[in-house]
Amino acid sequence: MFPGAIDTRGDPSDRDGANFVVVGAPLDVSTTFQPGTRFGPRRIRTFAEPFDDYDRRTDQQFSELGIFDHGDVRAWDDVEAYLEFLEGTLRDVVWDDAVPVTLGGEHTVSLAGVRAVEPDVVVSLDAHLDLRAEYDGNPLSHACVMRRLLESVESVEELIVIGARAGSEAEWERAEIEDVTVVAPEDAGSWSLPDRLTDRDLYLSVDIDVADPAYAPGTGTTEPFGLEPRELRDIVRELARQATGFDVVEVNDRDDGQAASLAGKLVREFVFSRADR
Amino acid sequence: MFPGAIDTRGDPSDRDGANFVVVGAPLDVSTTFQPGTRFGPRRIRTFAEPFDDYDRRTDQQFSELGIFDHGDVRAWDDVEAYLEFLEGTLRDVVWDDAVPVTLGGEHTVSLAGVRAVEPDVVVSLDAHLDLRAEYDGNPLSHACVMRRLLESVESVEELIVIGARAGSEAEWERAEIEDVTVVAPEDAGSWSLPDRLTDRDLYLSVDIDVADPAYAPGTGTTEPFGLEPRELRDIVRELARQATGFDVVEVNDRDDGQAASLAGKLVREFVFSRADR
Amino acid sequence: MFPGAIDTRGDPSDRDGANFVVVGAPLDVSTTFQPGTRFGPRRIRTFAEPFDDYDRRTDQQFSELGIFDHGDVRAWDDVEAYLEFLEGTLRDVVWDDAVPVTLGGEHTVSLAGVRAVEPDVVVSLDAHLDLRAEYDGNPLSHACVMRRLLESVESVEELIVIGARAGSEAEWERAEIEDVTVVAPEDAGSWSLPDRLTDRDLYLSVDIDVADPAYAPGTGTTEPFGLEPRELRDIVRELARQATGFDVVEVNDRDDGQAASLAGKLVREFVFSRADR
Amino acid sequence: MFPGAIDTRGDPSDRDGANFVVVGAPLDVSTTFQPGTRFGPRRIRTFAEPFDDYDRRTDQQFSELGIFDHGDVRAWDDVEAYLEFLEGTLRDVVWDDAVPVTLGGEHTVSLAGVRAVEPDVVVSLDAHLDLRAEYDGNPLSHACVMRRLLESVESVEELIVIGARAGSEAEWERAEIEDVTVVAPEDAGSWSLPDRLTDRDLYLSVDIDVADPAYAPGTGTTEPFGLEPRELRDIVRELARQATGFDVVEVNDRDDGQAASLAGKLVREFVFSRADR
Amino acid sequence: MFPGAIDTRGDPSDRDGANFVVVGAPLDVSTTFQPGTRFGPRRIRTFAEPFDDYDRRTDQQFSELGIFDHGDVRAWDDVEAYLEFLEGTLRDVVWDDAVPVTLGGEHTVSLAGVRAVEPDVVVSLDAHLDLRAEYDGNPLSHACVMRRLLESVESVEELIVIGARAGSEAEWERAEIEDVTVVAPEDAGSWSLPDRLTDRDLYLSVDIDVADPAYAPGTGTTEPFGLEPRELRDIVRELARQATGFDVVEVNDRDDGQAASLAGKLVREFVFSRADR
Amino acid sequence: MFPGAIDTRGDPSDRDGANFVVVGAPLDVSTTFQPGTRFGPRRIRTFAEPFDDYDRRTDQQFSELGIFDHGDVRAWDDVEAYLEFLEGTLRDVVWDDAVPVTLGGEHTVSLAGVRAVEPDVVVSLDAHLDLRAEYDGNPLSHACVMRRLLESVESVEELIVIGARAGSEAEWERAEIEDVTVVAPEDAGSWSLPDRLTDRDLYLSVDIDVADPAYAPGTGTTEPFGLEPRELRDIVRELARQATGFDVVEVNDRDDGQAASLAGKLVREFVFSRADR
Ligand SMILES: [Mn+2]
Ligand SMILES: [Mn+2]
Ligand SMILES: [Mn+2]
Ligand SMILES: [Mn+2]
Ligand SMILES: [Mn+2]
Ligand SMILES: [Mn+2]
Ligand SMILES: [Mn+2]
Ligand SMILES: [Mn+2]
Ligand SMILES: [Mn+2]
Ligand SMILES: [Mn+2]
Ligand SMILES: [Mn+2]
Ligand SMILES: [Mn+2]
Repeated sequence: MFPGAIDTRGDPSDRDGANFVVVGAPLDVSTTFQPGTRFGPRRIRTFAEPFDDYDRRTDQQFSELGIFDHGDVRAWDDVEAYLEFLEGTLRDVVWDDAVPVTLGGEHTVSLAGVRAVEPDVVVSLDAHLDLRAEYDGNPLSHACVMRRLLESVESVEELIVIGARAGSEAEWERAEIEDVTVVAPEDAGSWSLPDRLTDRDLYLSVDIDVADPAYAPGTGTTEPFGLEPRELRDIVRELARQATGFDVVEVNDRDDGQAASLAGKLVREFVFSRADR
Repeated sequence: MFPGAIDTRGDPSDRDGANFVVVGAPLDVSTTFQPGTRFGPRRIRTFAEPFDDYDRRTDQQFSELGIFDHGDVRAWDDVEAYLEFLEGTLRDVVWDDAVPVTLGGEHTVSLAGVRAVEPDVVVSLDAHLDLRAEYDGNPLSHACVMRRLLESVESVEELIVIGARAGSEAEWERAEIEDVTVVAPEDAGSWSLPDRLTDRDLYLSVDIDVADPAYAPGTGTTEPFGLEPRELRDIVRELARQATGFDVVEVNDRDDGQAASLAGKLVREFVFSRADR
Repeated sequence: MFPGAIDTRGDPSDRDGANFVVVGAPLDVSTTFQPGTRFGPRRIRTFAEPFDDYDRRTDQQFSELGIFDHGDVRAWDDVEAYLEFLEGTLRDVVWDDAVPVTLGGEHTVSLAGVRAVEPDVVVSLDAHLDLRAEYDGNPLSHACVMRRLLESVESVEELIVIGARAGSEAEWERAEIEDVTVVAPEDAGSWSLPDRLTDRDLYLSVDIDVADPAYAPGTGTTEPFGLEPRELRDIVRELARQATGFDVVEVNDRDDGQAASLAGKLVREFVFSRADR
Repeated sequence: MFPGAIDTRGDPSDRDGANFVVVGAPLDVSTTFQPGTRFGPRRIRTFAEPFDDYDRRTDQQFSELGIFDHGDVRAWDDVEAYLEFLEGTLRDVVWDDAVPVTLGGEHTVSLAGVRAVEPDVVVSLDAHLDLRAEYDGNPLSHACVMRRLLESVESVEELIVIGARAGSEAEWERAEIEDVTVVAPEDAGSWSLPDRLTDRDLYLSVDIDVADPAYAPGTGTTEPFGLEPRELRDIVRELARQATGFDVVEVNDRDDGQAASLAGKLVREFVFSRADR
Repeated sequence: MFPGAIDTRGDPSDRDGANFVVVGAPLDVSTTFQPGTRFGPRRIRTFAEPFDDYDRRTDQQFSELGIFDHGDVRAWDDVEAYLEFLEGTLRDVVWDDAVPVTLGGEHTVSLAGVRAVEPDVVVSLDAHLDLRAEYDGNPLSHACVMRRLLESVESVEELIVIGARAGSEAEWERAEIEDVTVVAPEDAGSWSLPDRLTDRDLYLSVDIDVADPAYAPGTGTTEPFGLEPRELRDIVRELARQATGFDVVEVNDRDDGQAASLAGKLVREFVFSRADR
Repeated sequence: MFPGAIDTRGDPSDRDGANFVVVGAPLDVSTTFQPGTRFGPRRIRTFAEPFDDYDRRTDQQFSELGIFDHGDVRAWDDVEAYLEFLEGTLRDVVWDDAVPVTLGGEHTVSLAGVRAVEPDVVVSLDAHLDLRAEYDGNPLSHACVMRRLLESVESVEELIVIGARAGSEAEWERAEIEDVTVVAPEDAGSWSLPDRLTDRDLYLSVDIDVADPAYAPGTGTTEPFGLEPRELRDIVRELARQATGFDVVEVNDRDDGQAASLAGKLVREFVFSRADR
């Protein structure tokens, strides 16, 4: 269970007063290079244990913010079916008037999150564009997730990818279409949400590989020259006010805790900032 | 490249004098619990580096036995298509009158091996029966591989599973049908091939988890109370004479080299024994 | 949660039909040499995930045996107070007519288990005698646990330490008193419970360091020349029938899963054997 | 032995010409989350081995600065008694007119250091305030160390905590009293000692978790958004002139050497700067 | 094989159209502190696998730039003989009008690279000066490599060491002679090649320990307070235009991939920038 | 310092009453495959820490047996010079009427040990014959050490290699000459010293790779199908009576302590048995 959250693994129906619901989505099927995202949710929860309940900046106790932990939605090989099931779980959260906070798992799980939340805009913090039409013939690979949701989630009008530094030529071409904005890692520190979007609903997705590998070695596809944690934090803080859904994905167990610790901290920054708006 | 083998990664057509062809099959899609079999082939090749070319028992040099390394057949998410492609590669080996030696990858790859070789009998050294009808709805999971080949490979009349100590109730029931023989880990040391099978073609598959976890921690689904390495070795030596296909599977990179070292050694024992018959 | 057990973390009062209750006791205060037993319970539960629900030998499904998981009794620095609290938790289990199955944590937690169960005889599988009067001035060190329970638990008439190969001179002298029997590692394979004890209540404690370090590197004080896993298994199977309490302790996270996998398997052997008596 | 120091493990009385005395304090009793500070001193000494004896900035050879290594003051479970003993050892260093340089061990050991040195001001570089009244009922937990020394060391008039980003509400309230100054991580780079303190005696304590986890994953309670190593270095350099005692604490062995390498380097920066004043 | 390169391990004579030739040089003889550079080349190639073929900045596909991978020049104990052999291999590359890209191995291998390329200027990105006359009596230690090439490669007029923060007093004195320029880590971000050198041939050598240890823990002699990856990248980009030889050295396998990932990325930055000039 | 030994690192002249002198020899120059023997001595000493001072079998306290620890003889690249220096150190031990107990370091260091001790017979427990004329042109490689001492140490009449299962054809031919006896791993358990040798002086060398890799993964060249620890122990116990020199070599830091724990235990078994004769 995420430290400070209320345990509702046994009974999801009992969510009175829920403002946020943490859902683990340990999907690890299409992971390229280094696998292990199946251990992401438990690792994030574990490395969140040393964090104090209290947040000084917002003067709030985490445990008093109406955060419930649904536990993990156990994954299986049929990604399409899994995403559908996960979407149902996350939509229940939305129907409970709470914000779903998904712990991945491979990035593909964001598809379920966005479908459940139906935001106007998706902001993806990612080293990669994830705009492929397919990857090795698989349209549901983590490397295609942003393309899929642009295509298939009607509500989504815009995608902003912050920190992207890798992609195929076709992906970069797709990114030039006007529904996509790419913010280079070097510009992420000074980026802020354009005025025209300040009253829109956002879904915020953090692929932990957006950080430089020193800060998150435990991820599938490390990509140097990434963001500093404080840059990540400041973006999460700013966008949290408008975000109706959040996930942090692509954490695995192949490091000494750096990736999970950062991921767990960003979950908290999201929650504290959103609760404090 | 497997140390001592001839490198034919560039050009598989050039296999004059091949007696054995090593093929890496780094499939890692349905792996349960701990993933990482995608790193199996490279890890086996690496940990085979310290072995001397010479084998005292059979008085042979490994590098003189006509062993070619085809390199890896790169895996992708569509297991059915991958197995078909891999089967083609392995059948080419058979058509070249050589013995395919497959380095897994998850156990599913044995299906390609057996289809290519079309043996009379399959001997599986495995902690698990792998006789499920399906696993999480997936009929091509590693946990179903022996069931699949009994069903779908016409040549196969019998399956012998040595070292099995785990399985579902349905699997154990399936194992009681007369086409399957199960040899308990405790009986493996004294087991030898029944007389009626001494002139049949065999396919020999080693799931490294058949060994006790101390000898092979780096595998997906560790299962204590397994075989000693010398017991494994002696079975491999005995069966190698009749084996027309061989694989060692389920090695991952989550240990300090124990699993890969044992796997690489068993490859050599197989080759030396078969070449020496 | 221990795989296959019923989750009662939220509400321990709801234990109708409980035959066994798993309780995590992640105490890690007096651990000598390598610390990390605080991660023992979660690691045992994790490495038990690949085990099949079904047990062929006893023809039973683990999930049908009335096993409940209470979760962890969170540890703190005051060992005396913690043991008292843990004892209460375990005594509740006894009062529910269930068998407590404690996952350590340092060996000290057996003191709570034995106090709760009040057996006639304690059987300790351990590389060490744990019969010190005190260790570095601490009478509640893991190295003193067997001495403490001989002194302080009135019901206990005898202690049998199997696999012991280390201890101070004073400990060995204490072990010569008639209430203690020591079975050397070399004799463990052929040992069986003396006739005079076959109708007595036992508490069975497994310090995972009783196994040879190859089978359990992840423990605080490795001691070579230990038991083989099958020897451990056979003793657990035999004694389970008479055991009214069980623990497996001293597992940490400093290996590749060997210690936790063996520990989880012994928990299952205990449960299957006891349920099958 | 710390590389370049003179070995006085056998005989602490022989310290003619000592300017600095390194003392290992491997206490690891109250460590929360990830244990292993018992291995801190040896790990710091080990990862200091590749450093050159010579320091260009100050044009000094480390081995010529009168640095003696006392070895470790072996720890045991009774923290109060241990601290008293350690304080004695460190006071001997002070009486020898040398600066004690303590290698932790959990942060609690700073209590012994400050008591021995009796400074006017304590500067703590730490992600945490360590101002708890008690932690899990333990007033001698690492999480209480700054509170304890404010209360119990008469000489100490002020505490400055640099880099703090975590603490309970009560700790932050305590920090608002005028004897405590907190410098946020974001302000640490531009911080310098207030004028009113430039002629006061300081004790400088570095809890390695003050650094961002990328630079020190091997610590008990990682806390993202921390300091850069050069920021740490510059503070150590500036304060070294006035410091009459120094420690670096909370290093464990759960990383690839990052924490210990940084800690060892800071020890050297302290020594070079202080010797050069 | 380096991902995207053409495999010429079997036949180095077949290099039509080669612009770059990658050569592994896994020398690991004089490595001080932590050994393992013998695994450097394979680890760099492995951690380059997740990188996309396409580079957005230069609008190029890696696989279309005429990059060939020669494989490794297997190392042995006689460093002098090995360097001579390696030099021959690298000179063949030069004679093929291609740029040698060497993957170390210890830094000593740069001697072969510089001898083969005969540049006017050598730029070394290194935490260390590597200007020793000898190290432990060995003039071919990695710690002497820059001294050796200044002495023995006639073409070399200047050496620029960027990021150096460690060296013996004698090395720093040697560095004051006019043929050596040292750029401190703090100045590396704003450094650019002096005008007088903008039309000279350069050899660019990256000792991965120039980066801060957080970004490259897997190296022999970690030295805190190093460069940020983007600073490294920008220098590599600028110098690539003039560089006729390149190496990245001192990567070992003692981390979670950080060092190898950064090294592999710098190889790509070098190639993309040079091809794009 | 080896736990229980008397520290004479500062002053080797002070060895009154020495019966055994432990000497670390961290040579790591010719190590093939996995390096790291330079960390062997410190790792053996560390993993010997949990062992109790008392030995029940021989009823002795380790600390009362006159064991001194000389510390490490720091290694450098010039193996010939190093061996000479080490030999001097070990000969001083012999002249002090004590038994040298060398902790390797690569196996080459046995050459110094045997030269210092000048035994009649050398018994090598090793997976490998180590009888090469040279290895990669290096006659002082660890793979040649037994050949070198047969050739160059006049006193040595016989070599017995126990557990050998690997070697080149030329090595096996050399092993057939009458001055060499090879005992296969399978025969090691029942082997005992031939009668004709029971009054001869022995030098006993344990290359830790003689054990099966499960028991010693942390060594340079793992070789499956090795000895069980108790088999090793029994041979050490038997031969200790006649041994005038002892070493344990080829331990590195690439495992979870298994190799070092076993090595440290064998040192103790040697000392206890020899002291008890
Ligand atoms: Mn992504
Ligand atoms: Mn990504
Ligand atoms: Mn299988
Ligand atoms: Mn299996
Ligand atoms: Mn115990
Ligand atoms: Mn024990
Ligand atoms: Mn602290
Ligand atoms: Mn702290
Ligand atoms: Mn260098
Ligand atoms: Mn360097
Ligand atoms: Mn050897
Ligand atoms: Mn050997």
